[in-house]
Amino acid sequence: MDPSQVKIPPVKDLTIDNITENVILINSLCKDPRMKYVLERLVTHLHDFARETRLSSNEWMAGINFLTETGKICTDVRQEFILLSDVLGLSLIVDSIDHPKPPNSTEGTVLGPFHTHEAPTITQGEDISHDADGEPLLVVCNVKDRAGNPLNGVKIDIWETDSSGHYDVQHADRSGPDGRGVILSDENGEFWFKAIKPVPYPIPHDGPVGKLLEKLHRHPYRPSHMHFMFEKEGYDHLITSLYLRNDPYETSDAVFGVKNTLVVDLGKVDSALAAKYGIAEGSWLMTYDFVLVTDMETSELRAYNSQMALEKLGRKVRIVNGLPIPDLD
Amino acid sequence: MDPSQVKIPPVKDLTIDNITENVILINSLCKDPRMKYVLERLVTHLHDFARETRLSSNEWMAGINFLTETGKICTDVRQEFILLSDVLGLSLIVDSIDHPKPPNSTEGTVLGPFHTHEAPTITQGEDISHDADGEPLLVVCNVKDRAGNPLNGVKIDIWETDSSGHYDVQHADRSGPDGRGVILSDENGEFWFKAIKPVPYPIPHDGPVGKLLEKLHRHPYRPSHMHFMFEKEGYDHLITSLYLRNDPYETSDAVFGVKNTLVVDLGKVDSALAAKYGIAEGSWLMTYDFVLVTDMETSELRAYNSQMALEKLGRKVRIVNGLPIPDLD
Repeated sequence: MDPSQVKIPPVKDLTIDNITENVILINSLCKDPRMKYVLERLVTHLHDFARETRLSSNEWMAGINFLTETGKICTDVRQEFILLSDVLGLSLIVDSIDHPKPPNSTEGTVLGPFHTHEAPTITQGEDISHDADGEPLLVVCNVKDRAGNPLNGVKIDIWETDSSGHYDVQHADRSGPDGRGVILSDENGEFWFKAIKPVPYPIPHDGPVGKLLEKLHRHPYRPSHMHFMFEKEGYDHLITSLYLRNDPYETSDAVFGVKNTLVVDLGKVDSALAAKYGIAEGSWLMTYDFVLVTDMETSELRAYNSQMALEKLGRKVRIVNGLPIPDLD
Repeated sequence: MDPSQVKIPPVKDLTIDNITENVILINSLCKDPRMKYVLERLVTHLHDFARETRLSSNEWMAGINFLTETGKICTDVRQEFILLSDVLGLSLIVDSIDHPKPPNSTEGTVLGPFHTHEAPTITQGEDISHDADGEPLLVVCNVKDRAGNPLNGVKIDIWETDSSGHYDVQHADRSGPDGRGVILSDENGEFWFKAIKPVPYPIPHDGPVGKLLEKLHRHPYRPSHMHFMFEKEGYDHLITSLYLRNDPYETSDAVFGVKNTLVVDLGKVDSALAAKYGIAEGSWLMTYDFVLVTDMETSELRAYNSQMALEKLGRKVRIVNGLPIPDLD
């Protein structure tokens, strides 16, 4: 195309007061109504942020440099922008929007940057940890639908750190996956496996995000937890974690993942359980009843929540595939 | 420090509705009141953006990838985040905040990414361009204060592209600076030099920002212009440009730099001027009267504008060094 021939709303003589409407106007050439709406809100908030803070050139330049360094440190195994999204609470919001939970279902929480696709498939009772320094833990759980029916054949992806607070991928010299397993629930919706008691650990804090936390006087620690991801045809993916009560970081998680309903008290394996599950008496015991939500329930709830949120905003929008776009009719 | 001992407001059981106040609460540990305020507004707008768009996980991930690519493409001579700030209109806002202009003074505009510190010092009448393909241009200007007094010894940094629309630094095989000069105004506030008629050109559009513009159906062109930067002790830096009237991109500048008062009509050099300035009769002629603002006027106006903007917001803040911080008294 000859760009000078594109029909464009005339934009000239811009001031701090009229630039927002003019940038939105020129962006409205976009053919994708959803992208147009996302950009409209992005530009509005970006501009309001600068106007409300009276952002100085030096601060703006510090921001440019921060974003540049954040991009530079990213590699195939390190995503500093996701970490930034996590510590600013954005990741939790996006998860809440995409995976809303009705009452009496298990809440989701942040995925974090350490999920991999190389976890070995395990059978009931196997040990996911090879860490001899960890405190032995028996995990006995079940998974149901909201009506209380056990769900058979749910694929459950589990991952945790070793006893030093590092995921397997954080060890440069690792020989293979550790602290990970993928297991299927049985006909009673049950699944059980051996692991180690989770420990608290810091998120990677030797980069720009770590420096930001330091300036904010925030610590980089996450409370002890174990990750669970549930998949079954017809049900919304559930990405969640269980947290240990009374962890020193229980109320100050660096990535805002803790929810009351996901905090558990560990028990101890008694002699009957020890015999049944083949683990030493006195080992730690973690139990939980997970509840999945159907795809249909989730998508209805997502659309309903969108409608409510946009009504608050007083904007004329339509909801298409659960996502709002401007309503021009 | 032992991070578990830091006194932290308890943060737990976060939802999409209460996370913003909780992230702000934990960030309020920050000892720098200005940074605390900037982060408070950043978190508020970031969260509202996600809530109002109902940002999906896929869109969030697309954003993460876009920012990562934008960081990756940055080099010592390419700053893609500044380009992003330019095409989103943010750069213009920051310039307006930091360098507010009272009536009867020359307006500023975007610096752009092509200013360098290697321009040669030139004397009155010298030619800043070595491009034989450019159309010869005589520039005759003066610079005054707001009372109309000529300003002597103002340092004026000038830069423009060659006739192909490229700055010198964009040519990998360049032998030295071209299209640049630093000149001093004389005792009458006057300065004149030879150059070439500016031409329109595209901003670098082979990276993430170019892809974004394409998706938005926006062209990457800037209208023909020449950059000027003025420095004199006691006066606010003036970063501005002169634009040629009737340029095809005059009303659709990709970086929103054009202002009515900075658009000029080129004239033609007559025989008298040709003899006086030693340039061929019929060459292009550009004239302009620049007006600088004192540091004191600027800083008073900046503080006043901040006060007005924050009153609109209904926030209790104090203005310190022209910048707002929360007022806790």
